[in-house]
Amino acid sequence: MSSHGPHPLLVTMGDPCGIGPEIVALAWARGALGHVVVCADAQVMRRALAAAGLQRPVACIDSPADWSMVPDNALPVWQPPGLPPHLHQLPWGQITADAGAAAARCIEAAVAEVMAGRASAIVTAPIHKEALAAAGVPYPGHTEMLQALAAGHAGQAEAPPVRMMLANEELRVVLVTIHVSLRRAIEMLDLPGVLQTLRITHAAAQGFGIARPRIAVAGLNPHAGEGGLFGDEEQRIIGPAIAAARAEGIDATGPYAPDTVFMRARDAQGHPGEFDFVVAMTHDHGLIPVKFLGVEQGVNVTLGLPFVRTSPDHGTAFDLAGSGRADPSSLVAAARMARRLSAR
Amino acid sequence: MSSHGPHPLLVTMGDPCGIGPEIVALAWARGALGHVVVCADAQVMRRALAAAGLQRPVACIDSPADWSMVPDNALPVWQPPGLPPHLHQLPWGQITADAGAAAARCIEAAVAEVMAGRASAIVTAPIHKEALAAAGVPYPGHTEMLQALAAGHAGQAEAPPVRMMLANEELRVVLVTIHVSLRRAIEMLDLPGVLQTLRITHAAAQGFGIARPRIAVAGLNPHAGEGGLFGDEEQRIIGPAIAAARAEGIDATGPYAPDTVFMRARDAQGHPGEFDFVVAMTHDHGLIPVKFLGVEQGVNVTLGLPFVRTSPDHGTAFDLAGSGRADPSSLVAAARMARRLSAR
Repeated sequence: MSSHGPHPLLVTMGDPCGIGPEIVALAWARGALGHVVVCADAQVMRRALAAAGLQRPVACIDSPADWSMVPDNALPVWQPPGLPPHLHQLPWGQITADAGAAAARCIEAAVAEVMAGRASAIVTAPIHKEALAAAGVPYPGHTEMLQALAAGHAGQAEAPPVRMMLANEELRVVLVTIHVSLRRAIEMLDLPGVLQTLRITHAAAQGFGIARPRIAVAGLNPHAGEGGLFGDEEQRIIGPAIAAARAEGIDATGPYAPDTVFMRARDAQGHPGEFDFVVAMTHDHGLIPVKFLGVEQGVNVTLGLPFVRTSPDHGTAFDLAGSGRADPSSLVAAARMARRLSAR
Repeated sequence: MSSHGPHPLLVTMGDPCGIGPEIVALAWARGALGHVVVCADAQVMRRALAAAGLQRPVACIDSPADWSMVPDNALPVWQPPGLPPHLHQLPWGQITADAGAAAARCIEAAVAEVMAGRASAIVTAPIHKEALAAAGVPYPGHTEMLQALAAGHAGQAEAPPVRMMLANEELRVVLVTIHVSLRRAIEMLDLPGVLQTLRITHAAAQGFGIARPRIAVAGLNPHAGEGGLFGDEEQRIIGPAIAAARAEGIDATGPYAPDTVFMRARDAQGHPGEFDFVVAMTHDHGLIPVKFLGVEQGVNVTLGLPFVRTSPDHGTAFDLAGSGRADPSSLVAAARMARRLSAR
């Protein structure tokens, strides 16, 4: 079926009251997830199959390692211990502490499996930040939680530096700063942070089969500062970070004007991209171009973790949850990318 | 030939050492400029025709009003008084004070003609900021110069508030801040500035034949601040400005997350746009999506002037000047938009 090796992909269900469970069911039923085990509450997945109009059984397994024993027509579900009861009775589209706790527990369990070598990679369905907070989970989102879990499993006190990459078929963008105000993002910008991003990007490129990635670095200011006229971060921080990376053998260039570098990197029919990756200083400089042609194909990849983790580029869509009308395209793209990255 | 009325479009030659003159010649020779008069040095335009490989004569006229006397095969050139001599002997692709002075003189003369009602609109070919500065022109670029000239002709002490719009067939974006550092753009952001942008955008929409434009307002911060978690400009400034505009009957909504609002506004085949205009807080939030699919079709429109002015979305391209290989597409799109806007 696939060439990704003997271990299955682990897909976490996400918030049981969001669209996560049903897009997992829909994508699986289309045969689009490959060798997969869903890390979830079994009853929640039964409800999701029903919501998606799929008359297919759930096969509960004791360990992701048992995935090959599941018949083709059944959804392979590994239910980790410690989930709250009656999750399938929670109302769709609402924030609850139990839902947040269950989503977090599935992520924890999935990380333990992949760190133990019983899964090839993790694909996470969307969680809800407020539900996590209601459950007392001390992380604002997936990235921070995965970072902490990875550090714990490796016996490290400090979490590994990670970066968010958003990618589709035409463009791969890695972000230096993410969920902070634009003002704070500018204040946080420093040479070590940019250099670290370049190192992480360079290392991650190997997973894409790119031995010597061409990394374009976008500036922060209009026209990349126009020689210092419109801001000096390019001269003080970004330029020196590029120079430091180049001294390490990384093919980083720039800083380029933000308004044209993404167009130049875009790799489309009749338009070969000039670069393999673009490093962007801010959340929206990077995400505006990736999302512009549609969020369906966008995949979020956490670079820097000791395992492969991808996720769809959308949230829990509470307004759609339970309708069976949610689009699993981004999840399918996330699974495809996880297989590709973990095959190397 | 066209339905734009009895007055010609005036196209200024731009910097005589850049690609301006030759893209004007190329676009005209393709019949893509409609009823047009080029405001230029006649010898510069002869050199441009030759550089573009076009064996066509120049017809010098005494006033743009005489455009209809020019035979179809000749390029109609109105040479305003006061140009430096020997401009056609300046080297291609170099910054010179004479070139800057000539470019500025053509703009001045064109504004006088359009303000006097002898031209329907102005399309400006690219100028070079450093050449302008070398000539002692006290404006950093077209926009500021046009603003000042418009105020002078109207006998007003204060320049009219203007905004830069960048548009292509799929997206129209109006910018609250432009050529300042990102840090300074955040500091400059205030309620009157956003509200003024919404008023200017609303008024300009009439020129596009949109009586009640749907104006989306992008936030400044990731996720439009996520309810104040990532910055408060949405709550302090942008939200109140939208409310004030709505109280005036303007259909402004938002603030929306910057990373998805442009995708939502994109009007393409099979993807009807949700909005007619997007107002962006910063230069690059706005320009990244307009340029992402290619700069060829992008047109810069100055909103708020007492006349229609458009320009191509690129610079003087000194490296290409004189080669005849420059692409006139964006100039053609600028002329098309100027005709459309001045026809109403």
